[in-house]
Amino acid sequence: MPAEVLAFIGGTGPEGLGLAARFAAAGHEIVIGSRSPERAQQAVEKIRARVPQARATGMVNQEAVRRGDIVFVTIPFAGHRDTLEALAPAIGAKVVVDVVSPLSFEGGKIAAVAVPEGSAAQQAQALLPQARVVAAFHHVDASRLMRVERPVEADVLVCADNREAKERVMALAEKIERVRALDGGPLVNSRYLEEFTVVLLNLNKTYKAHSSLKIAGIPIRRKG
Amino acid sequence: MPAEVLAFIGGTGPEGLGLAARFAAAGHEIVIGSRSPERAQQAVEKIRARVPQARATGMVNQEAVRRGDIVFVTIPFAGHRDTLEALAPAIGAKVVVDVVSPLSFEGGKIAAVAVPEGSAAQQAQALLPQARVVAAFHHVDASRLMRVERPVEADVLVCADNREAKERVMALAEKIERVRALDGGPLVNSRYLEEFTVVLLNLNKTYKAHSSLKIAGIPIRRKG
Repeated sequence: MPAEVLAFIGGTGPEGLGLAARFAAAGHEIVIGSRSPERAQQAVEKIRARVPQARATGMVNQEAVRRGDIVFVTIPFAGHRDTLEALAPAIGAKVVVDVVSPLSFEGGKIAAVAVPEGSAAQQAQALLPQARVVAAFHHVDASRLMRVERPVEADVLVCADNREAKERVMALAEKIERVRALDGGPLVNSRYLEEFTVVLLNLNKTYKAHSSLKIAGIPIRRKG
Repeated sequence: MPAEVLAFIGGTGPEGLGLAARFAAAGHEIVIGSRSPERAQQAVEKIRARVPQARATGMVNQEAVRRGDIVFVTIPFAGHRDTLEALAPAIGAKVVVDVVSPLSFEGGKIAAVAVPEGSAAQQAQALLPQARVVAAFHHVDASRLMRVERPVEADVLVCADNREAKERVMALAEKIERVRALDGGPLVNSRYLEEFTVVLLNLNKTYKAHSSLKIAGIPIRRKG
């Protein structure tokens, strides 16, 4: 199977850029989506600066989605519902990787935002009933992803209801050097992943750090 | 300062036993509380089997609380509110370490239980307004704690509003060989810790493992 084409909705933010850079380095064709074609193009230039051999193009979100085999959702939660509603026909039955953590930053305090559907990923699944939604990559620091010359010390927890989609995304995650993918269970567990992002951002603030999650005591190794 | 006396409310369950054994091994006097003095005594015997030099006694919860400098709450969430309400006068202004994760296991599915106060630890603080409640130790596997001859690979996230109480509990956590304590922020963050226990229990089931949490990318070391 040739390496999947990966589309990033909101690929101009740090998490989307970081993941896109890593997967471009691993040989995937990347499509950066944005509401503005200019900003999409600027994001592509940032990826090329890190990964000169990247096969990457910038497009408006709608076109990016049509071009991608797998669609990453890496937008702020504020635009999550409206963006996915608008893109639903283009997304159809594709695999959707939702990386969004619904957070608020009021008064300098980081907190989780309650989502009526349970989580951002469950909201995505409700808005995209044909798609196979996978929640993953919430706890991998964006700035570490951008330093493509270094490995990433992290375990990526992956939640999904569709087994084949989950396995594809777990295999993708392990294309990042040193990352281990772990099966976090069904999509209903995605809320716990999304909300735990609050703790990591708090740790980053307290320790002026770029923290990622690891799980000790699971004897399996990464497959790569 | 002499090592604090540590009381365990519900110290007969696996997490309470494991923590008590570790702190007994570190030289703390331990008081195991239970509703039944017989079961408290049986728990003490289990600790002595692992830690022959343990200074440990078993008592009913009320007496255990009076004897302790720091009170650990290691009961199932089902009894959390009633137990703490009954013990509030005895607990007074002590430091309370709440280890409880409110979980349900219906139909073989592990899920977090919503708590009106926000979290088990916040419920404890509401029921014990004079006490200084600290949330910690949710993600350290009980069976690994009981194997006192081995170090524990885990970072213990500690949430509290009272700085001095938080620092005492962080110092306690680092008496367990290889454990690093990290400041998880104010008590309001305890919900994210408690609910994340669902993910670890899911991983344990999927991988037949005893998982604990680690945080990568924070350059500080344990103090011990």
